[in-house]
Amino acid sequence: MRTVDLILRKRGGDELSVDEIRFLLDGYTSGEIPDYQLSAFLMATFFSGMTDRELSSFTDVMMSSGETLDLSDIPGVKVDKHSTGGVGDKTSLICAPIAAAAGVVVPMISGRGLGHTGGTLDKLESIPGFRTDISLDQFRAQLAEHGLAFIGQSDEIAPADKRLYALRDVTGTVESIPLIASSIMSKKIAEGIDALVLDVKVGHGAFMKKQVEARRLAQAMVGIGRRLDKKVVALITDMNQPLGYAVGNALEVMEVSQTLQKAGPADLTRLSLELAARMIHLGKITATLDDARKLAEDKLMDGSAYKKFKDVVEAQGGNSQALDRFDLLPNATGMREILSPRTGYISAILAEDIGRASSMIGAGRARKEDAIDPAVGVILEVKAGEKVDAGAVLCRIYYTGEENLDEAAELVEDAFRISGTKPDQRELILEVVS
Amino acid sequence: MRTVDLILRKRGGDELSVDEIRFLLDGYTSGEIPDYQLSAFLMATFFSGMTDRELSSFTDVMMSSGETLDLSDIPGVKVDKHSTGGVGDKTSLICAPIAAAAGVVVPMISGRGLGHTGGTLDKLESIPGFRTDISLDQFRAQLAEHGLAFIGQSDEIAPADKRLYALRDVTGTVESIPLIASSIMSKKIAEGIDALVLDVKVGHGAFMKKQVEARRLAQAMVGIGRRLDKKVVALITDMNQPLGYAVGNALEVMEVSQTLQKAGPADLTRLSLELAARMIHLGKITATLDDARKLAEDKLMDGSAYKKFKDVVEAQGGNSQALDRFDLLPNATGMREILSPRTGYISAILAEDIGRASSMIGAGRARKEDAIDPAVGVILEVKAGEKVDAGAVLCRIYYTGEENLDEAAELVEDAFRISGTKPDQRELILEVVS
Repeated sequence: MRTVDLILRKRGGDELSVDEIRFLLDGYTSGEIPDYQLSAFLMATFFSGMTDRELSSFTDVMMSSGETLDLSDIPGVKVDKHSTGGVGDKTSLICAPIAAAAGVVVPMISGRGLGHTGGTLDKLESIPGFRTDISLDQFRAQLAEHGLAFIGQSDEIAPADKRLYALRDVTGTVESIPLIASSIMSKKIAEGIDALVLDVKVGHGAFMKKQVEARRLAQAMVGIGRRLDKKVVALITDMNQPLGYAVGNALEVMEVSQTLQKAGPADLTRLSLELAARMIHLGKITATLDDARKLAEDKLMDGSAYKKFKDVVEAQGGNSQALDRFDLLPNATGMREILSPRTGYISAILAEDIGRASSMIGAGRARKEDAIDPAVGVILEVKAGEKVDAGAVLCRIYYTGEENLDEAAELVEDAFRISGTKPDQRELILEVVS
Repeated sequence: MRTVDLILRKRGGDELSVDEIRFLLDGYTSGEIPDYQLSAFLMATFFSGMTDRELSSFTDVMMSSGETLDLSDIPGVKVDKHSTGGVGDKTSLICAPIAAAAGVVVPMISGRGLGHTGGTLDKLESIPGFRTDISLDQFRAQLAEHGLAFIGQSDEIAPADKRLYALRDVTGTVESIPLIASSIMSKKIAEGIDALVLDVKVGHGAFMKKQVEARRLAQAMVGIGRRLDKKVVALITDMNQPLGYAVGNALEVMEVSQTLQKAGPADLTRLSLELAARMIHLGKITATLDDARKLAEDKLMDGSAYKKFKDVVEAQGGNSQALDRFDLLPNATGMREILSPRTGYISAILAEDIGRASSMIGAGRARKEDAIDPAVGVILEVKAGEKVDAGAVLCRIYYTGEENLDEAAELVEDAFRISGTKPDQRELILEVVS
């Protein structure tokens, strides 16, 4: 088997066998196949795509390139939730405790923020004492006791994906649906889950700008699940404005706490409940999805989801009092209000720009190795569809240093689109792929 | 400027500016841009193509990456001829002496054989004593005195193309019309020519299998010439059987000698005369193409072309007596006849397979560094359209060792397509692009 022949076949649109895909990925991981051949293969894949069979083979081989977790000794159906990345998206910290409170086992393996999107691990680490680098033994023990644990992805999970991603990043081959789908799914399946709820974001603040692309990605991931015997459901949800009001790590934890205490924003509450209900249903706690929805709402309303979150925070070394006393969380030292230049209706809030501005003042990272400032971020005062008067506060920027502040403020101000007429209300959950 | 952004723009079909192309190619040549980024760019180019403007910029930048010859102090219009590679294609050794005898200055810079196609330098070196590694000073002096000199491409000509070609070869990005066209034209224009006659081969034995592809390649090269102020004419010619009867280095030199003495095969004579006429016309020796055709025929018929070839052979250290006494050329030690399995008409002779068989017994190279055996090859006894009886000789294989001989014989036998009905006669010169 010669690498160049496999590149030529992919370039011509032929289907590669599982052995051929293994030859490529194993050869790449072992260093026998050089970067320059794999990058040509990846670009050919961008243009030629993959068949369903290739896609599941590719995912399977990437998964098998490293360690796979075996959680089968922990009773119950293991269900994770994954978002393709949004701005202000803190739903994991809400739906996971709800689902766990309802009896689902939730091994939540999360990432860190990069670029304009935040990461679950970064948000959790803004809680004083919270440790995401717990051992695998503790992870298992906590899952058995609480039904929920948060952990980062170990370097041993799908190392082929890690190398591939680094190469894609510098060769213009990130935006390929089969490559994105296999990257996500190989990591998730390696984590020993039985089922997965996906939140595929679409819109200005998301990786997928168009619903048709988001749908293709969702279908690809659901299809991989079907072939690899995992239940997968994907919600396609709107990211044409940040989710909730808070963007920034500690600020988002505050909003999570409020939401788990039934005082959260309507959009965030609604999406978190739906994600939790999907997890409960895939977790076989209820027979129907409607029953799952009722159960999710009960667990939020009766305070057991909030209690579950506090228990897990304590179990991972965090100070759960900080969830009730926000002065115990990192707090910004300065605040700047952004005022509306005119009267009108908010037609959109460009989520990517809010995310970028927030990242620019320290809430996120430009590169993986950058440190973040947990205290800073943006709190919206209005959402799309609302009426504002000239001079009214659109949002507040919370900062700890002046660096990049003016630039960020300008970006935030421009992110608010104000129109003379009342815009149509936008759907939050656009479609479900299963 | 970031390389990844240029890859993304090419991937999306945008036109790159000359500065952006220079950034890419200079960065690659200097080692600042790694192979893996350039290979992704090349694969994106395979799919997205290039505009006419990009194509001439790309060619120009590749050309400027190394030395360029300046032949302006030698009087007369400098016209070269280049073939995209065929089997039994020895036209350069015939049309160049004809054109030179007619007064054209022909700086013939040639290559070596690779794969199933032969190379002009290898053929010439089968003449005892002939040296293709003459100095540039001798090359110039010989051009001034004889109007014709044969030389190999120096390493200093278009080094960017050399690196690019090596990368394309292993990344499945060879078969891209803009990349092929710019590769050929950058080298040719760097060689200080004023005009160029191209012979674009099409068919089984050629790189381009379909006439539509050959036409696109021809148009691309003629277009580059137009933008870079060089007169370029391309003939698209048939390669669905070897040209002439001889395939293999010394065997082809014998056929060249016969053809220059008016005893050559009809197809080879006809194409060589037409190529020479095009060179004479572009060289402004005659006002019309018809006059050029007459002049070419005169120079062949009156023996002056043959004399020119002998003078040049002597000038480059070769023994020109070997052109009259073939026992002075390298001769094979064994011969095997391939017989027709049945009676019928030759409908095609798969040229690539004849070329591969010939290469397999030593006439060509699998890799650049391989040595060749000048004596061996194949002599056809029939051509397409002819009637053969069962048991008649189709061709003879000339060899010096038994290695690969049976396999080569089988390949050669299968290359003859014999049908029950007389096939339509195939055109040799299919079209002209100028």
